[in-house]
Amino acid sequence: MSASPTVYVTEPLQVYLEDAAGDKPAPGGGSVSACAGALGAALVSMVCNLTRGREKFADVETEMTTLVAASEAARRRLEQLLQEDTTAYNGVITAFKMPKETAEEQAARSQAIQDGLIIAADVPLEICRVAVEVCRLSKVAAGLGNPQAVTDAGIGAILGEAAVVGAALNVRINLGSIKDEAYVRRAAAEIDEIQAEAAALRAEVLVITLAKL
Amino acid sequence: MSASPTVYVTEPLQVYLEDAAGDKPAPGGGSVSACAGALGAALVSMVCNLTRGREKFADVETEMTTLVAASEAARRRLEQLLQEDTTAYNGVITAFKMPKETAEEQAARSQAIQDGLIIAADVPLEICRVAVEVCRLSKVAAGLGNPQAVTDAGIGAILGEAAVVGAALNVRINLGSIKDEAYVRRAAAEIDEIQAEAAALRAEVLVITLAKL
Repeated sequence: MSASPTVYVTEPLQVYLEDAAGDKPAPGGGSVSACAGALGAALVSMVCNLTRGREKFADVETEMTTLVAASEAARRRLEQLLQEDTTAYNGVITAFKMPKETAEEQAARSQAIQDGLIIAADVPLEICRVAVEVCRLSKVAAGLGNPQAVTDAGIGAILGEAAVVGAALNVRINLGSIKDEAYVRRAAAEIDEIQAEAAALRAEVLVITLAKL
Repeated sequence: MSASPTVYVTEPLQVYLEDAAGDKPAPGGGSVSACAGALGAALVSMVCNLTRGREKFADVETEMTTLVAASEAARRRLEQLLQEDTTAYNGVITAFKMPKETAEEQAARSQAIQDGLIIAADVPLEICRVAVEVCRLSKVAAGLGNPQAVTDAGIGAILGEAAVVGAALNVRINLGSIKDEAYVRRAAAEIDEIQAEAAALRAEVLVITLAKL
């Protein structure tokens, strides 16, 4: 591991895409899901910015100000998670390299692997939580925002849901190796709930969007 | 319009996200959909790159070489479309500013608007075509690629489908103003067909992926 890892949001978009396409495991599907969620959050902000400050939409000025604060917070958080996910699995990789000669070493190594796996699951779980919020915010944007930007609100929900389902796959693959049954049960239930909410929101926002075309 | 438009793939990812969030209409949902599709294509390439050249997967070496060529071609095309979409509506904007005093001017302006709208619909239509190809390639990656990267293949299909549905919204909004009925019928039928194929592929790839977790 290099002492200064690549900070992807400050690198050219092309570099992020090249590194995602390359033969290193990071950035992988978790980071890319966070990126899709951040793109969705950006579109919600755009709808707000094409609505507020215009006399025609003065009646939703307060809602748009609240909405853009929330969508920008979600975007910033997803930009962080896009980065965090690129190193989320490092703890597991390091733990696998630990010595395993004695029973004591084996126990320490096993515990370190388990600790690492929980971090590797927690990062995409947090991506799911923020991405479903993007879907909720897209619904407000589709309902109240400038109708000329309604497809952008719709695409916000589509990308929020894609980020949820994508990151949920990375939660699930790690849950398969985690021995803490209470953690596994709790996390599995949470992603099921988030996926159901995101799917419902995507469908609702598409109905609102198509009705306004 | 500036003489040198921002070339987004060479700009920091943060700049693309900021500009998408800002109060200019571009980059909007069409470009962002192309970006999501490019991210999905990158993940298919990653699966290939984590599979080929490994003795364990020698039996699929030929398939992986063919697959990565196709996914990299799709990624490059979507990177171009990400850029093209940021100016796809410019023709319509320019046409709206044309003089409309005389009957002749009105006819010329009206024709220029219609020509511009067809370009504005053609770009996201092309995004749909390439993004559904990403879904097809993800299915091959999920089926034949390194099972340790199967979630990345799954996320490739999720993002390909999101790009299809997102770009299709931008096709539809433009079709609403296009008077060439044959074009409208043909484009509407094509996006319906692409959306159905993408939805089926996303579902199939998720089944393959979940079975391998």
